[in-house]
Amino acid sequence: MANSNLKLLGCWFSPFALRVKIALSIKSLVYEDIEETLNAKSQLLLQSNPVHKKIPVLLHGDKPICESTIIIEYIDEVWNSGPSILPSDAHDRAMARFWAAYIDDKCMLAMVKSVRVEDAEKRKPYLEEIEDSLVTIEGELQKCCREGKGYFGGEQIGLVDITFGSLLGMMGIIETMNGRKMIVEEKHPCLVKWADRFASDPNMKGLIPEHEKLISLMRLGKE
Amino acid sequence: MANSNLKLLGCWFSPFALRVKIALSIKSLVYEDIEETLNAKSQLLLQSNPVHKKIPVLLHGDKPICESTIIIEYIDEVWNSGPSILPSDAHDRAMARFWAAYIDDKCMLAMVKSVRVEDAEKRKPYLEEIEDSLVTIEGELQKCCREGKGYFGGEQIGLVDITFGSLLGMMGIIETMNGRKMIVEEKHPCLVKWADRFASDPNMKGLIPEHEKLISLMRLGKE
Repeated sequence: MANSNLKLLGCWFSPFALRVKIALSIKSLVYEDIEETLNAKSQLLLQSNPVHKKIPVLLHGDKPICESTIIIEYIDEVWNSGPSILPSDAHDRAMARFWAAYIDDKCMLAMVKSVRVEDAEKRKPYLEEIEDSLVTIEGELQKCCREGKGYFGGEQIGLVDITFGSLLGMMGIIETMNGRKMIVEEKHPCLVKWADRFASDPNMKGLIPEHEKLISLMRLGKE
Repeated sequence: MANSNLKLLGCWFSPFALRVKIALSIKSLVYEDIEETLNAKSQLLLQSNPVHKKIPVLLHGDKPICESTIIIEYIDEVWNSGPSILPSDAHDRAMARFWAAYIDDKCMLAMVKSVRVEDAEKRKPYLEEIEDSLVTIEGELQKCCREGKGYFGGEQIGLVDITFGSLLGMMGIIETMNGRKMIVEEKHPCLVKWADRFASDPNMKGLIPEHEKLISLMRLGKE
């Protein structure tokens, strides 16, 4: 399923670009990985996403597709002979979209806000929001586990796994910033196992940014 | 295509419930319209959407589907023999999802914020955000018009039309609050025509909340 007609405008530390890379990996699609420098945005990025001027953008031939979840759905629909990323049943698909949106609207937003706040005291409400959402996500994953599924999506990585899994790098940063683990065995037994399974999944090979590199980048950004 | 197996938990003034009603109307689906009282949420709503506890919820048999855009996609996928709400081409579908998300993330959020602010001066930045987004949305609609389309979705109401059209009631409130029109002929010639076409579309019959009722509700909420 090689396809040299695919270009990804991304960035090595972006969880949103990572989501697209995971989807492309699941479908065994070959693509040109174009690393954007965020300070001086390329002409190609500005042309391809004139509304938001943001990565990730997938270029399929000359057609740009923007926004990570929309790109994932596009990949799943166009290369539908590969392993499915969204479930085939309409209700299961609606539920996958629901949980992907939940992870972005609740967990991810609080994570982004917490990383931006220097003052540890002011960070607390965001950390509480993250913790609340982790309890909800653990609850959903426990249902999947009771049904014998290893992933939110079933036996293999699906939309919800990609959405949450792409945030594990940022979660690591938050853990380092605050000197404590966020996803812990006592509160989130299923998520702990899931995170290990996700990180060692063959589809993730070479895709997860190194923790030390992320930490260095964050320190650089704050200097 | 009558289906008594459908229940909608909604609310007459909610643009998000309206979106689902339009989708059900396009598909000629019969449903039980259950009006929720937002102060004392029903047991059915709490059971059906335990995560967000919010309308709209579509109950298909005993299966709940939450979040308006997710419900619309579900309706379009399950009743796929009716008129299509999302385009059949994968790239066109990605673009429809992109514009629906843009309308919600940029225009709708600024609209909601502006309605909540009492002080006219503090409302200004939100009104500017709305105006910026209207220029962008007009630009996209002009492209559709040049291709001879009457709606964002083509010849008939699609996802983007539903998403933006459901906000026209709130736009009317904002116009009354601020004593001026937001969508105007000089700046948004296509949107002005589109709004008239949308409001008089047969699918919209009986669905648009009356402006005076919305204004009364808003005044009541602020007392």
